[in-house]
Amino acid sequence: MHTLFGNLDSGNVHKVQMILTTIGELYRRVDVAQTKNEPRDEQFLAINPMGKVPAVLRQDGRVMTESGAILYYFAQGTSLWPGDADLRAEVLRWMFFEQYSHEPTLAVMRYLRHFADDPAAHTERVADLEPKGRHALSVMESRLKRKEWLAADACTIADYALYPYTRAADSAGFHISEFPGIEQWLARVEAQPEFIPLGSDGAVETLGFADYFHP
Amino acid sequence: MHTLFGNLDSGNVHKVQMILTTIGELYRRVDVAQTKNEPRDEQFLAINPMGKVPAVLRQDGRVMTESGAILYYFAQGTSLWPGDADLRAEVLRWMFFEQYSHEPTLAVMRYLRHFADDPAAHTERVADLEPKGRHALSVMESRLKRKEWLAADACTIADYALYPYTRAADSAGFHISEFPGIEQWLARVEAQPEFIPLGSDGAVETLGFADYFHP
Repeated sequence: MHTLFGNLDSGNVHKVQMILTTIGELYRRVDVAQTKNEPRDEQFLAINPMGKVPAVLRQDGRVMTESGAILYYFAQGTSLWPGDADLRAEVLRWMFFEQYSHEPTLAVMRYLRHFADDPAAHTERVADLEPKGRHALSVMESRLKRKEWLAADACTIADYALYPYTRAADSAGFHISEFPGIEQWLARVEAQPEFIPLGSDGAVETLGFADYFHP
Repeated sequence: MHTLFGNLDSGNVHKVQMILTTIGELYRRVDVAQTKNEPRDEQFLAINPMGKVPAVLRQDGRVMTESGAILYYFAQGTSLWPGDADLRAEVLRWMFFEQYSHEPTLAVMRYLRHFADDPAAHTERVADLEPKGRHALSVMESRLKRKEWLAADACTIADYALYPYTRAADSAGFHISEFPGIEQWLARVEAQPEFIPLGSDGAVETLGFADYFHP
């Protein structure tokens, strides 16, 4: 069985839950919380020297990190990773866009407003990020008002990658109802048979950080 | 012939120059400068609605954006994109790390110190970014003090992706001589037969922004 390290507040962890569930792989989850600085714990750094969640310790002993690389790996041989070279580049294009232009605005705004120790201290930073977040959503909207899926004519890992922090855009301070193409696309992702709501646990077993690392 | 949109100060553009040169594709370059806000010009947005360089208008009329996706596409069939699924995931892992954790610190620090209108106004921001940039370099160093290349036993597009903003780390405020593994790896990339120095033009023809978009 694979072991997923991460917490349920993380959209990057959600992506991994989605792909493991889609391909029918069972996994256990070890809770690793950014809010407690656990990704920088020495024991966790031995697993992922990059100091971030998610990380997956595969059944065969290999460690994988970076949600985009994990999505790519487990999507091999499924329709979530299309066969055409142009479509594949298009899938990766949206995934790099998410990690560079979307997640660092939407996820950070959500974090500062809801998870940071003193949200009032970050008002200026949130205001700085707002136009960038809005731009990222408008880039998605311009595609999704014309097409059902981001990168191809069917659902791909690009849709899995963009889903969580777009779903949480309201808690980042946006009104997703202003983006009707995105709203319909969110519903389309949520209608996928293997869909797991953000914040839900798809693991067969869950361990606390201390239980796993300092038993 | 392909058309590359971007400027020679951009490390993300350098990655595209490197891959096109490596596979022997001729291209012309249209200068698009962040410092003049040209990526947000309406004419350019018609090519890349994400409003960023690089973008490639391929000979066949298709537009590609996001340096990571462009590297992936053109590396197909070369040794820069290995055949093994685990190695491929490892290549993408480093490329996502670069776009999420490395470029947003090292490239932004370099930009604020050297290209921004009033570098003195950004002293605090640069100081905030410093530990993140140092962490990104230390993650690379921990790999490169043991191995010759980032993701595999040979050069891959992960090395092309991490090269430019690591090479420019001194202008971001770091001393790359403190990272001997990285220093040797930089020399290794620079010894590749197709290497182009950062800031050099490998295009067969170069057009100014206005010449191309507003002739």
